[in-house]
Amino acid sequence: MRGFFISVEGSDGSGKSTQIKKIDAYLKSKSQEVLLTREPGGTVISEKIRELLLDPSHKEMKAKTEMLLYAAARAQHLEEFILPNLQEGKHVLTDRFTDSSIAYQGFGRGLGEIVAEVNRIATGGISPDITFFLEVSPETGISRKKSEENHEMDRLEQEKQEFHHRVYNGYKTLSNLEGQRICPIDASEGIEAVFSQIKVELDKLFGF
Amino acid sequence: MRGFFISVEGSDGSGKSTQIKKIDAYLKSKSQEVLLTREPGGTVISEKIRELLLDPSHKEMKAKTEMLLYAAARAQHLEEFILPNLQEGKHVLTDRFTDSSIAYQGFGRGLGEIVAEVNRIATGGISPDITFFLEVSPETGISRKKSEENHEMDRLEQEKQEFHHRVYNGYKTLSNLEGQRICPIDASEGIEAVFSQIKVELDKLFGF
Repeated sequence: MRGFFISVEGSDGSGKSTQIKKIDAYLKSKSQEVLLTREPGGTVISEKIRELLLDPSHKEMKAKTEMLLYAAARAQHLEEFILPNLQEGKHVLTDRFTDSSIAYQGFGRGLGEIVAEVNRIATGGISPDITFFLEVSPETGISRKKSEENHEMDRLEQEKQEFHHRVYNGYKTLSNLEGQRICPIDASEGIEAVFSQIKVELDKLFGF
Repeated sequence: MRGFFISVEGSDGSGKSTQIKKIDAYLKSKSQEVLLTREPGGTVISEKIRELLLDPSHKEMKAKTEMLLYAAARAQHLEEFILPNLQEGKHVLTDRFTDSSIAYQGFGRGLGEIVAEVNRIATGGISPDITFFLEVSPETGISRKKSEENHEMDRLEQEKQEFHHRVYNGYKTLSNLEGQRICPIDASEGIEAVFSQIKVELDKLFGF
């Protein structure tokens, strides 16, 4: 039996990391084998690409370069880590996947349709079985990030507010287009209230 | 007046570096402003991508990852270096461009049509004004490389002979398809004999 492929999406400061830990703990409490991973990253080569992408000194990086680097990291992550583990029956839980590229590079950077085209090639059209979109206003997200102790803002987090608004609209658009796969979650509430919404969907998917 | 965009292509060991130096010296002797560059590379970010690509320890790199990394380096090189210089009237002479991806990843790795699709997106369809394809049998090319003193073979040079044959066939196919742009040059001869073939084409292009 192939494992489930689950992604968690949302703007910076939407609480992805916290909810991912809770999903992981919940599935493990139900004796499920789950692997946590993240994008860009998840393999040695993809983590090196991540360093290039997030380095705040790379201010001259062009939007297309950025989009193609994310796609390269994703192709490696999918073929080397995600697919082999799913095929062994393990569940894979990833912090971001293709939806992030469409929201950040397609909408945020204004690259449009070419982002979906390149990602269809990079992934061979493979999507998660379910995606949790943690929905929080861009203002709340950024102010949450800024208040984190010792948090150094990376190259994308440093973008202006209009950029984060376009990203948010990108996620809303995707979530309307792909309502079968993407579950919007109200992430403005407290940690437990957010997780209880996710838990309902996990129980349905896993048949608990 | 926009400058000319010139690329030099060919298998490893075809003598590209030597002929590029000769083209550069010749054009400078004719008072032309020429900038030399190379792929992958030519900008700070693209040179960092080059390190990832050619590192012999990255044996697990997937073909699609490789192809997307080359395209990312190219997008950056084109937008940050090549186009602004051409627009200022300088000529740009590059060691490799899109044809290399089609030959190495499309034919060599067997990725096929998707390489041209991704590169159309990465370059917005921009091609060199003229391309010199230095044609030498794969056997001659590789044995030339191996005989270079202190030459450490990079990840792509270490590939098996069938790979280099497929690359060579890729270049031959491209050169037949795009006969208007690509000039095949018999690179099996000595340095001066090879350059004299190139010189004829340069004189036509520049109207010397």
